Parts: sequence; C-alpha cells; structure tokens
Amino acid sequence: MAGVTLFEVGPRDGLQNESVLLSSEDKVFLVEQLMDAGLTRIEVSSFVSPRWIPQLADAEEVFRQVQRRPGVELSALVPNEKGLERALACQVDAVAVFMSASETHNLKNINKTRVDTYPVLAPVVTAAKAAKKSVRGYVSTAFGCPYEGEVAITEVIEVSMRLFEMGIDELSIGDTIGVAVPTQVEALLAEMEKQGIPLERIALHFHDTRGTAVANAYAGYQAGVRIFDGSIGGMGGCPYAPGASGNVSTEDLRYLFESMGVTTNTHLDKLRDAARWLSQRLQKTLFSHDSQVAHAMTWAEGESEPQ
Amino acid sequence: MAGVTLFEVGPRDGLQNESVLLSSEDKVFLVEQLMDAGLTRIEVSSFVSPRWIPQLADAEEVFRQVQRRPGVELSALVPNEKGLERALACQVDAVAVFMSASETHNLKNINKTRVDTYPVLAPVVTAAKAAKKSVRGYVSTAFGCPYEGEVAITEVIEVSMRLFEMGIDELSIGDTIGVAVPTQVEALLAEMEKQGIPLERIALHFHDTRGTAVANAYAGYQAGVRIFDGSIGGMGGCPYAPGASGNVSTEDLRYLFESMGVTTNTHLDKLRDAARWLSQRLQKTLFSHDSQVAHAMTWAEGESEPQ
Repeated sequence: MAGVTLFEVGPRDGLQNESVLLSSEDKVFLVEQLMDAGLTRIEVSSFVSPRWIPQLADAEEVFRQVQRRPGVELSALVPNEKGLERALACQVDAVAVFMSASETHNLKNINKTRVDTYPVLAPVVTAAKAAKKSVRGYVSTAFGCPYEGEVAITEVIEVSMRLFEMGIDELSIGDTIGVAVPTQVEALLAEMEKQGIPLERIALHFHDTRGTAVANAYAGYQAGVRIFDGSIGGMGGCPYAPGASGNVSTEDLRYLFESMGVTTNTHLDKLRDAARWLSQRLQKTLFSHDSQVAHAMTWAEGESEPQ
Repeated sequence: MAGVTLFEVGPRDGLQNESVLLSSEDKVFLVEQLMDAGLTRIEVSSFVSPRWIPQLADAEEVFRQVQRRPGVELSALVPNEKGLERALACQVDAVAVFMSASETHNLKNINKTRVDTYPVLAPVVTAAKAAKKSVRGYVSTAFGCPYEGEVAITEVIEVSMRLFEMGIDELSIGDTIGVAVPTQVEALLAEMEKQGIPLERIALHFHDTRGTAVANAYAGYQAGVRIFDGSIGGMGGCPYAPGASGNVSTEDLRYLFESMGVTTNTHLDKLRDAARWLSQRLQKTLFSHDSQVAHAMTWAEGESEPQ
C-alpha cells in the first residue's frame, strides 16, 4: 500500500500549548531527535508575536542553531508579512499560514473576520512563493468550532478554495477541538474532490480528544490522503479541555499505518526516545497510547511488537 | 444509518481486572445504572471458579439482588458445565463461553489446547440451548496473541466455525491485547462472510491499548457488524500492559456512533454518571477519552456537545 508522510507539528503546535518553557538548545535537540527518527517535514516554530506565544519567542535562535539536513523540510508558521520577513531571514524551507473555517474561532484567534483575513494572507503567500518557499495553509475548526458547534462543509470549502487561489501548495485540514468522526472526513474530502482540489495537496490534522483521531486518519487514508500531522508524544494537549488529549501522537499514527503495511519511513525507537526525553523536560506525562504501551508491555519474553 | 447495540462488558470483563473489590451491592447498583443508561445487553458476572477471579466470586449474590427489567438481557460467562449449572440456577438470560484463537493463549488462560477445549464447551452450549438460553461465544486473541504475535485468519475462522457448529447464537471476536488495525478487521470479516458466517451474528470486542479501537469499530460497522462490546469508563485496563488502556469505553464507542448519526439508544449523562461513580468506588482514574472531556470541556458558554 502507498506510504504516507507524517508531518511533525510537535515543536510548534504541541509546544505552544505547554506551560514549561524549553530552552532554545532543548528545542534544537528536539528537532534533531525528530530528524534522527526519520521525520522529513517538521514545523519548527512560529513567527507570531512573542507576546502571543512566549514559548516560541526564540524562533530565530532555534533556526540559527539547528543543523539542516538534506531532504528535510524545516518550516515555520507566519501570521502576516512581518512574520514572513522574519522567517525568510532565517532561511526556513517552507512557511505556513493559518485561519479558521468558522467565523467566531477566526475572530477570537486572529482578531479578524474571515473576509478580512484573506487580504492579510494573500500577500504573505505571494511573497513566500516569490522567495521560492513552499507554502502550507491551515484551515482550523474544519469539523467543529468550540463556539459555533458543527461547521458546514461549505464553509470549509470556501476558506480552502480561497487559500488555494492565493497559491498555497498544500492545505492542512484541522480538527482543532477533536470532534470529527470518519463519516465527516469522508464527506469533506469527497466534496473537495468534487470541487477539483487534488487530495495529494491535502494533509489531515487530527486531535484525539474523543478518541477518533486514528479512525479519522484511517478514513482519510482510504479516501486518498497521504499526509498526516502528528505531534511527538501527543504533546500539546487540548487547549479547550485541559487534561484531555490534543494532537494525535506521531507514534500512534505510525502504529496505525505501519501495522497496515503502509510505510512511514520512521524509526519507532527514536520517536519513543524523543517522547520520553520531552516528557522529562516538560516535567509531565505526555499522552499517547504508544507511550503507555512502550513501558508497560510484556510481549511474551522479549520485545516482538511490530517495529 | 442502521443503529448499533453496545454490549456492556464492564461488570464482568472490566471488573475482573480491577484490584479493588466491589461489594455485591455496588455491583448491583452498577448494573442498575447501566440499565438506566439504556444499555440492554449487560454481562453481569462470571461463573468461573472464585479461586480464578475473586472479584467475581459473588456472581450468585449479584444475580439474586439485581432487579430484572423487560427487554434487558443480563448474561454471565461460564467456563464449563459446572459454571452453567450455577448460571442456570440464577436464571441468567444468556450465557457466554470462551476460548482463544491462539494455542498458547488458550493453554495459559484455560489450561487446555484448543482441540481439548471444544469437548468442554460443546455440552455447555447444548445444555444452555436446551434450557432456552441464548449463547454467546468469545474468541480471544483474534488479531494478536501476547505469546505468539499475529494470529492467522485461518486460526480464527477454525475456532469460530467450531463454536458456531456447537450452536452458539453470536460470536464476539476479541482483540484481547489491543493490537488490531482496521485492515485486519476488514480482512477477517470478509473471510467470515466468505465462509458463510452471517455478520449479524458477529460482535466486535476491541481494546484501545494502541488507540485503534474506535478505528476498528468504524471498520467493523462499515463491513456490516452491528454489535460492539464496550466497558463503562474503559474499566479494566490492559492485563498485559498495566497502566495502558484496555477495553474501549462504552462512552467512546457511543461518541463515534452517535456522531455519525448511528443510534445507540443510550444516554450519555447516565453513562458518565456511572463511570464517575465507578471511578470513586475503584479509587482510581478510569481511562476513557470521554471522561477526560466531560469534566474539562468548555464548549462555548454551555454544554452543546452532541448528546
């Protein structure tokens, strides 16, 4: 079966929800461990205002220190042209812009209506493309909004089309609050195909808050998607439900795919090492099914779990 | 979409893995709460030797005290003819027999080879049917064995066919160690249909140890299965990986199905009440995605999650 790419969002999307501040050196070491584990697309940081997200205030420093490797894309989130300038100065390989499918979440998250957001993002995408950077778009709250409830497919399609029209290369569809079920995923992807959006340009970004992330990834794979966002160790949690799971862990996605015979080109031992190290550094138990199993499992006499 | 039945295994399969002993009165109250929540098929206890499972030594007492309700099936596990006699004396509505798909697990669990197990179970099924009880068969380790690793479909089919030949009404296929992925579920069910086993007589019993239980349930539903085993609150954990998830929680299965528009005829509030109460009684945090969400979620101003 066709392989998948696990797109690692832990250092950015995961870390921004963690309260213990990591040093720049630790962040660099994290990214290096993730590259060691075989991950080839890593979102390293965010060039938003340090006032918004103090955890990621050292984006420049992290990019300055991290050793680039051939074949590995290190990207950053940029909210606007100023953020893009900072990112380009750091020689990022790729950038990502973001907005929400639902009006209220967009308003609360970036303080603008959706219609007012497009003119902010369009020049960012244009300038990034002019600088020969590939551009990812994120559409958040695509399956449910913490303020509005279920989000209509037509709204997701509208935002997605606008982002593609701006020139993004790839769109990551986010279940920000972890409410999606497989039938929703299938319905949205079917409508996207109908609208002429090629599914090879789609990534799926699931949260495991209600235990459906792996099921949704499976449905997405069946529909033809081959890029899945994960966070090492499940780092990040759910911003809307403290204590609950957020980003699905990279390891749990890996388990699903590798067990189905779908290669992820990643090394389980090294992913687990990174998750364990992070857990120590963040002084907390990270949530992933894999981490629960890794330490507890007695698989006959030795370790004979699928590697 | 066609509705499903959530078959509740918590009072038996869940509780037998919990170390805090519940009183018979508490067990009765648990079953009553589960009936209040709309569950119509509940495995109440087990008539195995009290030496094997001290937690369930009071099966007679629980059945004596619990108030029957029309339309609700209260069943019990029976390992042999002696267990069946005890169960019949308690006027159980249904019984279940069990064995493993893998030889080593069967040997370790019931101290017999598979071939030697059939002659023990056959008279139990015959006698139960003669007593007009419906009979469920469990086939454990159907997707993986803690001692042998992956289990071949041919072995699962062999055991399943033998159980159906004995006269069982329904077969629950168990992923005892929580390793299954959806493609395995699909492959096994396809082979069962090919062998003439009607999928309306199949139940699926998943453990969420590696986060795949909900995905597997979804795959099973898509294939045509309509009965899914769950444990209230995810009670029980994984006997092979202490601290890791075991039985998928009834609430998480409910979330999947109800969110897809598939009715379960259960009440979320009452399931959550039962899980919370159990957690207090067992003096531990039970694992389910739903319980993490239930207390933490701020869904806009009020509670507008799918009920």
